[in-house]
Amino acid sequence: MTNSHGALPTKAAEIYEQICDLPIVSPHGHCDPVWFSENQPFPDPATLLVVPDHYVFRMLYSQGVRLEDLGIGVAEADRDPRKIFRLFAERWHLYLGTPSRAWLEYTLTKTLGVQTALSADTADLVFDEISEKLRLHALKPREAMQAMNIELLATTDMALDTLDAHAQTRASGWEGRVIPTFRPDDVLNPLRAGHAENLKALATMTACDVTNYAGFLEALRKRRSAFRALGATATDHDVPQIYTCWLDRLEIEALHGQAVKGSLSHADAVRYYGHMLVEMAQMSAEDGMVMQFHAGAKRSTNAEVLEKFGLDKGADIPVAIDWANGLEALLNRVGNHPNFRLLAFTLDESTYARELAPMAGHWPCLRLGPPWWFHDSANGIRRYFDNVVETAGYWNLAGFNDDTRAFLSIPARHDLWRRGVSLHLNDQVERGVFAMKDAEMLAPLLARDLAVDAYKLEL
Amino acid sequence: MTNSHGALPTKAAEIYEQICDLPIVSPHGHCDPVWFSENQPFPDPATLLVVPDHYVFRMLYSQGVRLEDLGIGVAEADRDPRKIFRLFAERWHLYLGTPSRAWLEYTLTKTLGVQTALSADTADLVFDEISEKLRLHALKPREAMQAMNIELLATTDMALDTLDAHAQTRASGWEGRVIPTFRPDDVLNPLRAGHAENLKALATMTACDVTNYAGFLEALRKRRSAFRALGATATDHDVPQIYTCWLDRLEIEALHGQAVKGSLSHADAVRYYGHMLVEMAQMSAEDGMVMQFHAGAKRSTNAEVLEKFGLDKGADIPVAIDWANGLEALLNRVGNHPNFRLLAFTLDESTYARELAPMAGHWPCLRLGPPWWFHDSANGIRRYFDNVVETAGYWNLAGFNDDTRAFLSIPARHDLWRRGVSLHLNDQVERGVFAMKDAEMLAPLLARDLAVDAYKLEL
Amino acid sequence: MTNSHGALPTKAAEIYEQICDLPIVSPHGHCDPVWFSENQPFPDPATLLVVPDHYVFRMLYSQGVRLEDLGIGVAEADRDPRKIFRLFAERWHLYLGTPSRAWLEYTLTKTLGVQTALSADTADLVFDEISEKLRLHALKPREAMQAMNIELLATTDMALDTLDAHAQTRASGWEGRVIPTFRPDDVLNPLRAGHAENLKALATMTACDVTNYAGFLEALRKRRSAFRALGATATDHDVPQIYTCWLDRLEIEALHGQAVKGSLSHADAVRYYGHMLVEMAQMSAEDGMVMQFHAGAKRSTNAEVLEKFGLDKGADIPVAIDWANGLEALLNRVGNHPNFRLLAFTLDESTYARELAPMAGHWPCLRLGPPWWFHDSANGIRRYFDNVVETAGYWNLAGFNDDTRAFLSIPARHDLWRRGVSLHLNDQVERGVFAMKDAEMLAPLLARDLAVDAYKLEL
Repeated sequence: MTNSHGALPTKAAEIYEQICDLPIVSPHGHCDPVWFSENQPFPDPATLLVVPDHYVFRMLYSQGVRLEDLGIGVAEADRDPRKIFRLFAERWHLYLGTPSRAWLEYTLTKTLGVQTALSADTADLVFDEISEKLRLHALKPREAMQAMNIELLATTDMALDTLDAHAQTRASGWEGRVIPTFRPDDVLNPLRAGHAENLKALATMTACDVTNYAGFLEALRKRRSAFRALGATATDHDVPQIYTCWLDRLEIEALHGQAVKGSLSHADAVRYYGHMLVEMAQMSAEDGMVMQFHAGAKRSTNAEVLEKFGLDKGADIPVAIDWANGLEALLNRVGNHPNFRLLAFTLDESTYARELAPMAGHWPCLRLGPPWWFHDSANGIRRYFDNVVETAGYWNLAGFNDDTRAFLSIPARHDLWRRGVSLHLNDQVERGVFAMKDAEMLAPLLARDLAVDAYKLEL
Repeated sequence: MTNSHGALPTKAAEIYEQICDLPIVSPHGHCDPVWFSENQPFPDPATLLVVPDHYVFRMLYSQGVRLEDLGIGVAEADRDPRKIFRLFAERWHLYLGTPSRAWLEYTLTKTLGVQTALSADTADLVFDEISEKLRLHALKPREAMQAMNIELLATTDMALDTLDAHAQTRASGWEGRVIPTFRPDDVLNPLRAGHAENLKALATMTACDVTNYAGFLEALRKRRSAFRALGATATDHDVPQIYTCWLDRLEIEALHGQAVKGSLSHADAVRYYGHMLVEMAQMSAEDGMVMQFHAGAKRSTNAEVLEKFGLDKGADIPVAIDWANGLEALLNRVGNHPNFRLLAFTLDESTYARELAPMAGHWPCLRLGPPWWFHDSANGIRRYFDNVVETAGYWNLAGFNDDTRAFLSIPARHDLWRRGVSLHLNDQVERGVFAMKDAEMLAPLLARDLAVDAYKLEL
Repeated sequence: MTNSHGALPTKAAEIYEQICDLPIVSPHGHCDPVWFSENQPFPDPATLLVVPDHYVFRMLYSQGVRLEDLGIGVAEADRDPRKIFRLFAERWHLYLGTPSRAWLEYTLTKTLGVQTALSADTADLVFDEISEKLRLHALKPREAMQAMNIELLATTDMALDTLDAHAQTRASGWEGRVIPTFRPDDVLNPLRAGHAENLKALATMTACDVTNYAGFLEALRKRRSAFRALGATATDHDVPQIYTCWLDRLEIEALHGQAVKGSLSHADAVRYYGHMLVEMAQMSAEDGMVMQFHAGAKRSTNAEVLEKFGLDKGADIPVAIDWANGLEALLNRVGNHPNFRLLAFTLDESTYARELAPMAGHWPCLRLGPPWWFHDSANGIRRYFDNVVETAGYWNLAGFNDDTRAFLSIPARHDLWRRGVSLHLNDQVERGVFAMKDAEMLAPLLARDLAVDAYKLEL
């Protein structure tokens, strides 16, 4: 039982065999819905594997490669993909020991079927092999999705997104399942750039008077409803520092009046967003949409890179967070509601055993998302199971999601998780925590079914 | 070498064989002293295993079972124990991977000798088997304590407790050793409900004028002395956030004046309690009582559950703590005193290697309590040894205590610890850290003797 | 493949064989440069192994031994080395499981070639054996350095140090390489004792008008230059809590005016030091000196021990730190500069995966120092690799340094690291993360070459 990630011990391999070919459910990620509505072939290897993947180019940047030389911030027409791919291939050793290397090796060898091993010497050869593959029918998005055994894929869409691509995909008669996720940060968090303008756009889009707080809530309900109409079952929230609160009506109306004008102080903006998250939780209890909290990333910490190249350029850095106090207001308002579900994702592993597992082991609404981002890795997965299962059990976990914009890496990421699940369950059996039959029952749950249940998917 | 927790590797099993039958010393826990003074048989299986155990019912609550349906907040007469036990048995899978499952399996199979494996199908059968066992003489508390090989058991008793049950047990002539522990939170921490009334009760109980600070200190000394007279060797303190300080006499007298009236501000209440902890440390240096700090639990975070069902209902959640700064005032006042001993328990594992082990490796007074609560588990024990031993060594550890109110689970908990000790010591030998003869010397220390020494027990 | 640290698994031993005899590069530590300029024999065993090593005597203090009885704070003439050594040997068991024991065993058996195993019974025998060794020529510092295969050794020298010992060593014609490191805390951090006086001394030393901010910067440049002239390639900074900021010229000049007078408030002193760290970073970008941040130690937490025995007496305790926010100002001013390099050391392991690895995986300037202090241990090394490699890769690490003032323990510490490297790389191969040939390429990098590169050493 070997592949690019190497051999599994015999018994772990037996567990893995039972789950490695299960359909992939991808309930949270960042693929572009236009890929599926237009179904155009993917461009060249560099544009596919290097330019959009901040996991990949941040490592090159950390070792002195200029982002411009990797095509970042360069119009597609002005890039030399072969040259970019060479820069990357020459530094392939930098990824030794990282999940990026494991994912890329799987993507190259299994998903793309490339025969040549990547190295500085083979850069051109591999570039040409991938280019050839990309020209094949099977690597257009819809066909690739089916070839990759992806049963369902959720994208992440801002509140102001028209969802046209989703509507077109649905209308096309294609049987693939691609659904949106409602991400309202841009209209909820006054600390985000363009917030006041976004509120105006929301008014236009929903024909609601959002200058009025009641009208604003109505507009949000309308957008949630529009997302649900296209299959959405979940919302997603970027929560840099966790803070929730419940303000009385007069106060939130006053703050909202200032938010509309873009005149909130920083402190009031934090309180406003803290209240709006609780409003979202209440709407989730009403309409059943699963609420996702991705908490603890300090965004775009490199000001020069932000200015020259924009958001999501590899300089988002985790910070310590405080779930117990941060969620207190939200949970005490909605946390016992039987129709509310909250999925929590953290980049602060010290909260796994200290806060999140105990909270998930108490609150009926709460389930723990899988290891997120930097922790979606072999060791990260091991630490996750090690820290959460004893207190939260398995049924308070939300299974796996890949959270990626690197479409072709989806099978690689699920495969790494499934291997991690197999290793973990085998360890539990070896330590005598439970029997192999329990492991065999838990394996498909962790590989697929808990995600289906956590996201209330109908499959 | 197998049991419900599974097989140990051969060499670890050899270590385990040497310690598995050592008498159990339980120097910290929450059993009811009345059990031993009255020696009544335990009631039905649900009331024994489910209703009082927040480890058990919090998991069911997290998966949608109502606490009322588990008999919580329901008078014993109005409960249907068999129905409660069925609800629990049907969800037995939820505990896979948790220490609760390991403890309960040990309790059922080893301690109670139940033959039938628990499952949804066998709920009634197991219920009947346990009920039958409970009717047997050996399962009355005194006989059970001896059958379970418990050499000494400490309860936890509030400062205002009359200790009548302890006195009666002593007077009864029974040779079992049950001792109290002095827990003065209710009269020391103004943030606890009823604090001002508790001070009045303390005055009545001790015939001291507690409105006067000197009188208050005298009352505390009297209570400590009353506890010691019944065998107590330790005090215990719930310290939600660690803060200690030393105020000058005028200031603490002024704050005490307000405390008596119940008129302290939140900030002053924190400072008052911070000072009182140092007073307790000083009294410990005087009278030799070992001081225990259980720090970092945010209590009763679910307001609805608190209101309907009261304290200790599974919603106590750990928070990050700062030992280095929090203990600074206390240690700098009493920490070098040869007669002072402080045992520290944490729920924030990130402090094991960062703060607690370095502090225990310096301060003569400080010893580290075993993994507490959620961390009293197979992985928790492994992380504990991994993080503390290299810096604190073994002799700055306080051995094990079970901290439980689930009397019948005591052998199960000590057994899990002893297995963890055996695995750890065997790992050390395999890694070449020390020789098997060192492991064999350390095993009984960790299993029993360090606890005897840490708590100054005479056994 | 066994030694005092025990056997390595076969394949790990094969990796270890390839690196165990590589020359030792020691780019950060606290040896006394006078040892090499004067080359006097080391004194007695107690003065060599016990009295100066706070790792060693803090453990004895934690178990009730008085520091006076260990010769701490006692003039050398008034000590009884044999008696001290006995106290230590009688408590040799206290070190079981600690890196101190591993280092001392290696030092005794391999470096000193002592035949007798240490114990309470053999204290005198071992004392005599070591004393005999110390009289041998090979144990004078220069000869020992060569016998221990140390290719280069950096000391740590305060900004006001004359560097005479370094100059004399250079002038002596000896071919050993001992270089200084510029540590300007005493003239940069107003919270350190004697800061205002130190500024005056700096003025005298450099003939600059340091009352003037521009003159102060010039003085600092002169001292950096003097250090570089004697081979220094790096600076080192003790940063108790990480805070950096960039103040405008008027403000920093005003604060500097107060600093000269010793009249800064605590808050302003923190801001002043925060700014000066950024100035140092800018000078590093100019002159190429590698900047080292040792962050997160709360110094001398035991006031009584500080008063009686001074600094560095085993009561420095780590605290939680916040790299992401703390370095923000510094990195956004200098972090993208191609000539700037920053090495970060932490005592807060929770920041490895959460902050440091993501930051090192982005910023071109940043490399992660090896596990520091309490974490320079078998488990500490394992946790380090486990937590940082997946996100930072290997080339963003700074290799190893021993950070010790215990000269004879240098080979022991590098050996423990090299064993840790071998175990880690072998684990990676066994888990299928990469192939044995990758491990064989990485092993010498981690053992020696990354340190050479990180510190810009010419070897």
